[in-house]
Amino acid sequence: MQPACRAPFELYSKESGKSYGNQPLSICDESFTPLEVRYDLDAVKGQVTRASIEAGPANMWRYTSLLPIPEGFEPDLPVGFTPLVKAKNLGKRVGSNNLYVKNDAVCFPTLSFKDRVVAVALANARHFGFEVVGCSSTGNLANSVAAQAARLGLKACILVPADLEPAKILNTQVYGARLVRIDGNYDHVNRLCSLIADQYNWGFVNVNLRPYYAEGSKSVGFEIAEQLGWRLPDNVVVPMAGGSLIRKIKKAFDELLYLGLVEAKPVRFFGAQATGCSPISTAVKQDTETITPQRPNTIARSLAIGNPADGPYASRMIREVGGYAEDVSDVEVVAGIQELAETEGIFTETAGGVTTAVTARLLAQGRIGTDELTVSVITGNGLKTTDALAGRYELGRAVRPRLGDFEEYLAELDGPTAVAPELEPELIPAD
Amino acid sequence: MQPACRAPFELYSKESGKSYGNQPLSICDESFTPLEVRYDLDAVKGQVTRASIEAGPANMWRYTSLLPIPEGFEPDLPVGFTPLVKAKNLGKRVGSNNLYVKNDAVCFPTLSFKDRVVAVALANARHFGFEVVGCSSTGNLANSVAAQAARLGLKACILVPADLEPAKILNTQVYGARLVRIDGNYDHVNRLCSLIADQYNWGFVNVNLRPYYAEGSKSVGFEIAEQLGWRLPDNVVVPMAGGSLIRKIKKAFDELLYLGLVEAKPVRFFGAQATGCSPISTAVKQDTETITPQRPNTIARSLAIGNPADGPYASRMIREVGGYAEDVSDVEVVAGIQELAETEGIFTETAGGVTTAVTARLLAQGRIGTDELTVSVITGNGLKTTDALAGRYELGRAVRPRLGDFEEYLAELDGPTAVAPELEPELIPAD
Repeated sequence: MQPACRAPFELYSKESGKSYGNQPLSICDESFTPLEVRYDLDAVKGQVTRASIEAGPANMWRYTSLLPIPEGFEPDLPVGFTPLVKAKNLGKRVGSNNLYVKNDAVCFPTLSFKDRVVAVALANARHFGFEVVGCSSTGNLANSVAAQAARLGLKACILVPADLEPAKILNTQVYGARLVRIDGNYDHVNRLCSLIADQYNWGFVNVNLRPYYAEGSKSVGFEIAEQLGWRLPDNVVVPMAGGSLIRKIKKAFDELLYLGLVEAKPVRFFGAQATGCSPISTAVKQDTETITPQRPNTIARSLAIGNPADGPYASRMIREVGGYAEDVSDVEVVAGIQELAETEGIFTETAGGVTTAVTARLLAQGRIGTDELTVSVITGNGLKTTDALAGRYELGRAVRPRLGDFEEYLAELDGPTAVAPELEPELIPAD
Repeated sequence: MQPACRAPFELYSKESGKSYGNQPLSICDESFTPLEVRYDLDAVKGQVTRASIEAGPANMWRYTSLLPIPEGFEPDLPVGFTPLVKAKNLGKRVGSNNLYVKNDAVCFPTLSFKDRVVAVALANARHFGFEVVGCSSTGNLANSVAAQAARLGLKACILVPADLEPAKILNTQVYGARLVRIDGNYDHVNRLCSLIADQYNWGFVNVNLRPYYAEGSKSVGFEIAEQLGWRLPDNVVVPMAGGSLIRKIKKAFDELLYLGLVEAKPVRFFGAQATGCSPISTAVKQDTETITPQRPNTIARSLAIGNPADGPYASRMIREVGGYAEDVSDVEVVAGIQELAETEGIFTETAGGVTTAVTARLLAQGRIGTDELTVSVITGNGLKTTDALAGRYELGRAVRPRLGDFEEYLAELDGPTAVAPELEPELIPAD
């Protein structure tokens, strides 16, 4: 394969205008605001084409030209390029004729969109020479850093809130990573990680490597556009934790537009949160970019960031494009998980329940139109948050392996007259 | 997209030579042996090319021409085309310079290779007009039938051994499927399903739809060859439950060869079982195709089929090609899971632990050579069998979110002098 042309990139601060080249740094020392990666897209205009991208591998590295990947990096993990599925059944249930689900519940290697950001962060961690990498995490990030660090031969030290779901803890430890449980919520963990990053020479993917890390999320946007046949959707519904993903999908669309790979059209972005941790959706509803921190209390633990770093920017962007944000109760989160599973056969974690329930509500409110092309972004797998469904399903008694016993059991369930029993699954209302 | 040309296909019995056309039937009424699908490959020779396949979608439907898919079927679920990753780290640990892992732990939609067989079975179930589908399952198949039936709007009734792993039970019920727990092992469940299929007009994917179902496994073989750059490997290590998958990978290779898409070379197949349920590996070791049924007793429950339907054929094929079969203890299964996770960042279920441990042992025995291109087939995700690792990892105490407390905690773990602590993960020996 030919070496892909790369858009030159560097860190800079939007607020102060200062450039920082490329280094492990996340905050501007003048404006004290987050650094971003900016690209010289003009340098690749005309060279990065639909055809050049389509000729790439069936993973996120087909977009290497538009990601902050150091020279000489040889990607070997086939991360991303997850299915975009037309959700006809779910659409029917929630009132959309044109609904798609972007399904990162099957992302390689650890079943969440965090695999994308970690892939970009660790490419840079190696470039900067870090031998130990880490993160503060609500779980999915922990899984992904642990797995990808193992593959790359890097040591990993990962900090999480002590009450993390058991599956997410195991799915970090199994890769040989050191896991440190912190007696506090994500915001406590995150502040501690900033101190550690200063103290030790470790590459924390979402602290000192954060600007690079965050760019990995753009691949979700690139894929959505390409998988729609190089078209932009009318609406995108995105779960919000720190508030980064939703902005990066927008950034991806803007870059494709700038390069002439998609046609211009208005795209509205909708943020989804759980009511038990809804600082960004609250700000959007109050038409402000001032975020009031909140103490999280929700089963959607992967979204439980009470003081979201990119919250102000997310709120501003959503309101600028005429979008909106909604939040749903934990009961609706569970219903959302069940609804997506029952209609489309996709089992998502609590964050995906949030997105599904918010999508349903936005359709019910009329904020999203029935015929508009809407993409609902599912970011993680339901096997990681099985405790959210604890007690929701009856096991049923064990039946002896004989036809008569089986028929007796069906009669118990369906009534004595059933011969070819009805198997109607219990429907969960949309809202 | 142009309609793909299809190789005409029909059911037939190798033993009696009798043809059956296409119908939901799995056993020849003359020889009482399993029916197989045969194709008229000559009809598509020269039309099905590397280029025609590569022009298809990035999922198993790129091989539709070589699968028993009814006319008019519009595949919409992007099943398969999972990563084939070069396992350099694992190779180093187990003594191979040329090891690959085929990773169906991230197969869409339900994270196991069963998604492939179910996709083909349900395409035929719809064609034959079944409204209710079902299966007997050790778990992965249950998950996949439930999810894909939900998506297709079919009712599902699924029978499993009562002691199935909780994650696999939940991951069946969440899709709205009816789950019936049978007081017995898989072989009891399977016999009951045959009776039910006779009694009710239901499409049991692995009973009356079995010949079609089994062909879906060929997609694993097609993908391996294509992902190796249209080359066949020297060795393939495959987990064995019923004994079907390993034969279908061989069948896939043979078909590619017949069509001139790969060059001829000897390929050896190696079967992997858990010692607690090893009827096929025992037969191979005894150089016979007579299978002595066994009462399963292993944590590798997805392989726990004591009386494997395709066991005799698998044993014959393995010995014919100069392969071998091995089985490993439950302790080695767990070590295999950990080894693959720690080296390649891939978290597999118990069956994948079996395959990994068997691969290591075959290398240690010299049955597989250091430089031979070897593919280890990983068929399912570790999040489904987390109970196999219960008690393996210490949680560690919760640490207060302060730098001093963090450093104190590291000192507890690494000794009092540690400043930049060593984070060497504990290594698990290869065998």
